[in-house]
Amino acid sequence: MRRSAPNILFIMYDQLRFDYLSCAGHKTLETPNFDRVAARGVRFDRAYCQSPVCGSSRMSTYTGRYVSSHGAAFNNFPLKVGEHTMGDHLRAAGMGCWLIGKTHMKADAAGMERLGLAPDSVIGTRIGECGFDVWIRDDGLWAEGPKGFYDQKRSLYNEYLKSKGYTDHNPWHDHANAGIDDEGDIASGFLMMHADKPANVREEDSETPWLTDRTIDFIDAQKPDQPWCAHVSYIKPHWPYIVPAPYHNMYAKDDIQPVVRSQSERDKAHPIYDAYLAGKLSGAFSRDEVRETVIPAYMGLIKQCDDHLGRLLDHLDATGQADNTVIVLTSDHGDYMGDHWMGEKDFFHDPSVRVPLIIADPRAEADATRGTVSNALVEQIDLAATFVEMAGGEVADHILEGCSLVPLLRGDNVAWRDFAISEYDFSTSSMATRLGLAPRDCRLFMVVTERWKLIHAEGGFRPLLFDLVTDPKELVDLGDCTEQSDIIDELYAHLHQWSRRMSQRTTVSDAQILARRQGGSAQVGVLIGVYGDEEIPDEHLAAYRGKATPVEGS
Amino acid sequence: MRRSAPNILFIMYDQLRFDYLSCAGHKTLETPNFDRVAARGVRFDRAYCQSPVCGSSRMSTYTGRYVSSHGAAFNNFPLKVGEHTMGDHLRAAGMGCWLIGKTHMKADAAGMERLGLAPDSVIGTRIGECGFDVWIRDDGLWAEGPKGFYDQKRSLYNEYLKSKGYTDHNPWHDHANAGIDDEGDIASGFLMMHADKPANVREEDSETPWLTDRTIDFIDAQKPDQPWCAHVSYIKPHWPYIVPAPYHNMYAKDDIQPVVRSQSERDKAHPIYDAYLAGKLSGAFSRDEVRETVIPAYMGLIKQCDDHLGRLLDHLDATGQADNTVIVLTSDHGDYMGDHWMGEKDFFHDPSVRVPLIIADPRAEADATRGTVSNALVEQIDLAATFVEMAGGEVADHILEGCSLVPLLRGDNVAWRDFAISEYDFSTSSMATRLGLAPRDCRLFMVVTERWKLIHAEGGFRPLLFDLVTDPKELVDLGDCTEQSDIIDELYAHLHQWSRRMSQRTTVSDAQILARRQGGSAQVGVLIGVYGDEEIPDEHLAAYRGKATPVEGS
Repeated sequence: MRRSAPNILFIMYDQLRFDYLSCAGHKTLETPNFDRVAARGVRFDRAYCQSPVCGSSRMSTYTGRYVSSHGAAFNNFPLKVGEHTMGDHLRAAGMGCWLIGKTHMKADAAGMERLGLAPDSVIGTRIGECGFDVWIRDDGLWAEGPKGFYDQKRSLYNEYLKSKGYTDHNPWHDHANAGIDDEGDIASGFLMMHADKPANVREEDSETPWLTDRTIDFIDAQKPDQPWCAHVSYIKPHWPYIVPAPYHNMYAKDDIQPVVRSQSERDKAHPIYDAYLAGKLSGAFSRDEVRETVIPAYMGLIKQCDDHLGRLLDHLDATGQADNTVIVLTSDHGDYMGDHWMGEKDFFHDPSVRVPLIIADPRAEADATRGTVSNALVEQIDLAATFVEMAGGEVADHILEGCSLVPLLRGDNVAWRDFAISEYDFSTSSMATRLGLAPRDCRLFMVVTERWKLIHAEGGFRPLLFDLVTDPKELVDLGDCTEQSDIIDELYAHLHQWSRRMSQRTTVSDAQILARRQGGSAQVGVLIGVYGDEEIPDEHLAAYRGKATPVEGS
Repeated sequence: MRRSAPNILFIMYDQLRFDYLSCAGHKTLETPNFDRVAARGVRFDRAYCQSPVCGSSRMSTYTGRYVSSHGAAFNNFPLKVGEHTMGDHLRAAGMGCWLIGKTHMKADAAGMERLGLAPDSVIGTRIGECGFDVWIRDDGLWAEGPKGFYDQKRSLYNEYLKSKGYTDHNPWHDHANAGIDDEGDIASGFLMMHADKPANVREEDSETPWLTDRTIDFIDAQKPDQPWCAHVSYIKPHWPYIVPAPYHNMYAKDDIQPVVRSQSERDKAHPIYDAYLAGKLSGAFSRDEVRETVIPAYMGLIKQCDDHLGRLLDHLDATGQADNTVIVLTSDHGDYMGDHWMGEKDFFHDPSVRVPLIIADPRAEADATRGTVSNALVEQIDLAATFVEMAGGEVADHILEGCSLVPLLRGDNVAWRDFAISEYDFSTSSMATRLGLAPRDCRLFMVVTERWKLIHAEGGFRPLLFDLVTDPKELVDLGDCTEQSDIIDELYAHLHQWSRRMSQRTTVSDAQILARRQGGSAQVGVLIGVYGDEEIPDEHLAAYRGKATPVEGS
């Protein structure tokens, strides 16, 4: 019972590009509800995910730690037992932490078995669900092939669809993520040629409204005196790129913003980038036909997200909770959509690694920043520390590697980081095969400062470098430019400072360490560096004196 | 039942300097039993501990991981739940892994509680004992002061002494680690002025023979067809520097080897080294009186260790087990003994960070190297990987950061590391207070190559640098010498390569990653980057096709 803390409605979209919102400058996509939150709070214009891919980005956000600190470096690499999560920190601060939607978390089943942890115990369940208490878990990918389902868990969404009369074996695919072709056949959203068709599902039964309804159920079930953090985590606008009517044809070819790419990017491609360009995704998204079919659907999916965000905001307003609920809107990474000849995410150009981040804190202490834009270099690991501070807890900064954003939300003038970091592990990918790299050399690091972005690849490659001031579209790689060697050295110095960070000393807090500096080993009988008894106070000497009992034969 | 593997008798002494053995060149201290093992095997002349202090050095040896990977960076910093240990790896390979003696491991009680692990379950006990099954746990420091015992556990050694008629409240202190002064009072070994007195204990009841007897009990209790690894871990020759007769006066002032120090070391001291020099330990061990009293006792303690090592070797010979038992002799770190004006350990000159390491493998495949000395840069984390290979297991190199020494023991011509690393965390120390450093800036890193040793300190200091070829005694710090800037850059490049290492991706093996490169997401229904249905094979297409069921209102 601590109504001094607000609720935190922590909404994450999946694969939502930072610049596909009208408040972030999109010219043809109106997102009035995102904008409404931005007007109430702060839009962080330079927020970076810690890895431009779902699983590892989320594991960083949920643990508040860099990818190479928690080790779950790619999708379905299990998060090891023992990692502390946002839920652990928040519950310790007296705030519940609930999941409604996707985490892409793979539990460390081997680690749990080694420690004898029952997966169905309260503790085991939380470990298996990345520290959340589960209202709804739905990762939103109920694909099925000859070897069965991609996701082995029970699909509550498929059960919902069936209860609504969608009788197919896998209505997630056959209805919510497919249209109908001219011959009356299923037109799967996995084939991007179908992205312009309406999904064969009633809009109100599609995933975004379904999860929104579950969120409203959750909000209505909470006790008014118990603050909560709810992680509402939508699968959309992630692929399959297909959306129900009326969103499927709200946007047309003419609404697409100009592609950002140049022939010289291909001609002078760094070997790592070149390996991406040789891949299937790059091939597809370099075709105008693909972009022109997919992007309007992607925009429609975002528009649908915006509309249902409006429903959530209205519900908070209507139930009087808008005043004590912090709204957080973000994404796990972006989507290239053909920029830089790339599809999806997986590399470090802004369309992939930069994320939307809007935080509206309704409390008076945040009044000074309402409707402002912050250019601070923000990392998604900052969210966990932010939420702990909002919950009134103490930020365990020997575990959490991010910084609370609360001072920035208050408009306090605080020192802030000079650089942000993101990482990517492509060890399982076709790029790795193409480059002939061993699993541990398939690791990329991005360092970004106010002006520069450097990408380092293990395995003996030169870095890539972009000047974000003279080349904001990141079309000119200066990584082999000797004139920039001082800048490259400076960015490497940042990377190395970061690499040497203390990430694993998580069992002892700084306060405990400072207390130990007071010494006191003499209090438990240990003297170090003492020669004569005149060197120690009389009251300590007693422990080392007394009448001896001579031993025969010694 | 896999008698194909040998037993491993893994003996660790505590604070035994690398060069206080006759086989390592000591001129006055004869250690025929260490030499006997060296004659049967390989003496690694350039072995380094991963941190020159008991607790963190051992946590690295027992996990096979660097200090900044496991995070237990100083004495009594708990080893976090979830870290894999030598015992976990060996048991998985079918070999038991037993503890007889000291580990200096502090269990992560908070972590265990958070995971609901009962400390008295089999799993909980192993986690609490650093992965060992315990034959005897005795950390050898039963000091007691006004606030009670330094070590809260039950002291089996004190119980043993009491059973032998030593009736004092704490015979560990009053007998085994104290003499008698001229007035018949207890002369505590914690006061180094008493180091020349015989301990008031029968030699056969002192700690080294006691633990040797327990080891013989262990060996005799084992089944012949079940190979074992026994970590026999003596507290000696660690302080209190006092030893029973006849060892207490075997060595005199004239037997002490010349001190290694120079006035210019003090005059030009790097700020970190200077902070050490300002401490109590340095003050004590800079006095000749202290060295001349302590070093003969230290040598006596080592001589006693050597004699009891002889008993163990004889017992293996007598019971026919010498032929199937690998002998490993090492220490957790060294002891400055006044060299470089320093006492104890805690910094990176050779007397502190270099450790003795002798491995004798009786099997025919090691015949080629018997009696040889290896100059390979060896790290103590190599031992875990070595033992797993000897046990016939597969080295989990996504977890274990060391390299198996088996190829070196066979004389195989293998590529080996170019540099070794050691770390030190002085965040709890008086040096930290003296330097005014925050806990996370109190971290030191050593990089050593064949020729050079660089020490990096966080917190904005220049490095220290020693040329081990022109200055093998490490008396001249070249860290501010501009002529060496290329060397310094090169050593920093090593440090940074190491800092970026992959240390936490421990839930996925390289083999699992390589298997995932084969793809197969289409087998579970996920298509990425596919536009038209002509791009996928017909047998996969079925998953995305079929007659659609049109939905009313969609």
